[in-house]
Amino acid sequence: MESLINCTEEQQPSSVMTNYWSNQEACRSQKAKCAGGFVLVHAGAGYHSESKAKEYKHVCKRACQRAVDQLRAGALAVEAVTAALVELEDSPFTNAGMGSNLNLSGEIECDASIMDGKSLHFGAVGAISGIKNPVLVASCLLTEAQKGKLSAGRIPPCFLVGRGAHDWAVGHGIPPCPSEKMATKFSLSAYKRNKRKMELAEKLDTGQNQAKKRRQSSENENGSGCLDTVGAVVVDSEGNVAAAVSSGGLAMKHPGRVGQAAHYGCGCWAENACNMNSYSTAVSTSGCGEHLIRTMLARECSAAMQSEDAHQALLEAMQNKFISSPFLASEDRVLGGVIVLRCCRCVEAQPSPNIQAAMVEFLWSHTTESMCVGYMSAQDSKAKTHISRLPPGTVPGQSLAIEGGVCRLMGIVD
Amino acid sequence: MESLINCTEEQQPSSVMTNYWSNQEACRSQKAKCAGGFVLVHAGAGYHSESKAKEYKHVCKRACQRAVDQLRAGALAVEAVTAALVELEDSPFTNAGMGSNLNLSGEIECDASIMDGKSLHFGAVGAISGIKNPVLVASCLLTEAQKGKLSAGRIPPCFLVGRGAHDWAVGHGIPPCPSEKMATKFSLSAYKRNKRKMELAEKLDTGQNQAKKRRQSSENENGSGCLDTVGAVVVDSEGNVAAAVSSGGLAMKHPGRVGQAAHYGCGCWAENACNMNSYSTAVSTSGCGEHLIRTMLARECSAAMQSEDAHQALLEAMQNKFISSPFLASEDRVLGGVIVLRCCRCVEAQPSPNIQAAMVEFLWSHTTESMCVGYMSAQDSKAKTHISRLPPGTVPGQSLAIEGGVCRLMGIVD
Repeated sequence: MESLINCTEEQQPSSVMTNYWSNQEACRSQKAKCAGGFVLVHAGAGYHSESKAKEYKHVCKRACQRAVDQLRAGALAVEAVTAALVELEDSPFTNAGMGSNLNLSGEIECDASIMDGKSLHFGAVGAISGIKNPVLVASCLLTEAQKGKLSAGRIPPCFLVGRGAHDWAVGHGIPPCPSEKMATKFSLSAYKRNKRKMELAEKLDTGQNQAKKRRQSSENENGSGCLDTVGAVVVDSEGNVAAAVSSGGLAMKHPGRVGQAAHYGCGCWAENACNMNSYSTAVSTSGCGEHLIRTMLARECSAAMQSEDAHQALLEAMQNKFISSPFLASEDRVLGGVIVLRCCRCVEAQPSPNIQAAMVEFLWSHTTESMCVGYMSAQDSKAKTHISRLPPGTVPGQSLAIEGGVCRLMGIVD
Repeated sequence: MESLINCTEEQQPSSVMTNYWSNQEACRSQKAKCAGGFVLVHAGAGYHSESKAKEYKHVCKRACQRAVDQLRAGALAVEAVTAALVELEDSPFTNAGMGSNLNLSGEIECDASIMDGKSLHFGAVGAISGIKNPVLVASCLLTEAQKGKLSAGRIPPCFLVGRGAHDWAVGHGIPPCPSEKMATKFSLSAYKRNKRKMELAEKLDTGQNQAKKRRQSSENENGSGCLDTVGAVVVDSEGNVAAAVSSGGLAMKHPGRVGQAAHYGCGCWAENACNMNSYSTAVSTSGCGEHLIRTMLARECSAAMQSEDAHQALLEAMQNKFISSPFLASEDRVLGGVIVLRCCRCVEAQPSPNIQAAMVEFLWSHTTESMCVGYMSAQDSKAKTHISRLPPGTVPGQSLAIEGGVCRLMGIVD
């Protein structure tokens, strides 16, 4: 049995975090028991107006609480991360599940994925309609794949899209939801506004200058606007990590377009510590799907997290593997954000042989104007939330903000 | 202007290739002019019966010829690789385009993707129906994405699925094809056979032993059977590389299931040499989609190819990143194959300052019973083809074969 003794947190609200990890006690690099566990969520990298800041913070708070309720009840990381995502999807303010962006045809098509750091299994759905919580389908795919082969030796799918994904979900007990119930007053009016804007832009484009115009970035671009995909990363009391992400995709996307939230290595990543990896790491991304796909940002950030200095490693990953990535050389603005969690066992901080201390480092970084995050350990009475913003005067898509903290978790080992 | 002077080829038909690269002249690690160019294709890793060997070899031959015709006409690698794929898809014997495996509902849903090593752009379609050549849609997505933003600043999609992908294709001038025209006598009879087999297997599974049975590998598994996805890798005369892959997916897959052929980093990969990469590399994979997705085999093999000894690097990648991958720890048989091409400039082999020699190394490796490949340089009068088989007595999914060759291309530089 383990019980939670102590949890300390630090948070640096400045846009560039001081490198406080270098002064910390040594961490033994292996999977650590993380008494109670910890969750970090995001309600998207994009633009969060002051007027809606309260709503975004509230949903992050509720999502953290849902995950922690699960953790306290002894759930594994993959179950806790699913619970957090359901709460984030259910908010009409986020671009995931309920209230998702509408596509070019005025329909909602969602992407979601989940990864379990323990089994390294992955489940994803793309362009799925008529399901209130796409993450539940991704999670169910992961669970089913872990059961092994289907009848006649068929390999279970890890990625389903469109109508087939919807039918599979319903066949596995996930209730369908009429699409009209998933649209909100806000998403419908945004659709009408975007449609008018698009029609106007296309009318202005004469055949002659269309090609030229396509190469330029537009004043109207939704670039740093409604990219508010949601996600979460969790470590459970056993030290297992999991990550998940869910998105309604870009506003006015072509029907059938699948973004990073359904793409392996791009939307989320989770790996428990093992012989090859010193730290357990979990990552969830948000932003422009095409940029996040082509840079495989989730997996890149996870790999970077094996460096000693987590803050420096994330800073370099966001700079070199994202903003300055050769894969996005033709893009003038590279838009995205990540939340990252890593944990390990603290060797020097063990007060006695039967008390084990674990260090959870949590970070977020974004090139978009803002990113809304929340975090909570299983010992906390409520979550902390924060809207991180780029420093004044910096250009979204070319600059980045990076922040985070540390949570030390101690547990009695019988 | 460049003209082709000399091209030599070697091929080691043994299942373990001798390490002849170590004795070769030094290669300067940078993008090399590859007079005329070179193509390597595959008609899948799986099982190729002796009775159909001739057909598989024929289609590989024709695909190589199509790519070389393009290269001789001055086409870029991405155009030549598309031409090869169209030929491979059009064969009723391959599991791609025409003659694809039927899914659980008796429908054809195809996956395809393409990557351009020059621009590092990527285009993919998943679970697309009613299009004869899915690679043309992937290729068109890539081309459209390279043109920059859409009206109102919208970011063009790189990955489309299902009905939306079909409609986008038709809207971009790719003609629809009635699904019934894409099924063949062979694919229809295989569907009926598989359906009977599945129904029988499910009847035998009582509620009690179903869970247990799911964890065991089945005698009937389609594991090393019909996995004959197709693909190609090309280097053009300018030294640009490209890769593509196309698949009808696993037989009796769930509708909406998307395999590695549509998945970034999993089905194909291409990167021109640059500051960070000494060699230009291109990879295309085949086999069990879920295994290839979870190991990101195309990208892993491409990264491995930056090592000095290409043969050793591929051997280690197939062993450590595929067969023994921690991502597939629960799988008893790991099924897949790759074709790999890398090229660089030969420094010591330049006969005169205005003649430039390039070295193209090409390899294939598979854990499936067999893999059918073809290759051709722009100087050759016809393609060479080969069905590589695992050595007798070895177990598919646990052993591997690796073979390949070298082609030296020399061109006059004005």
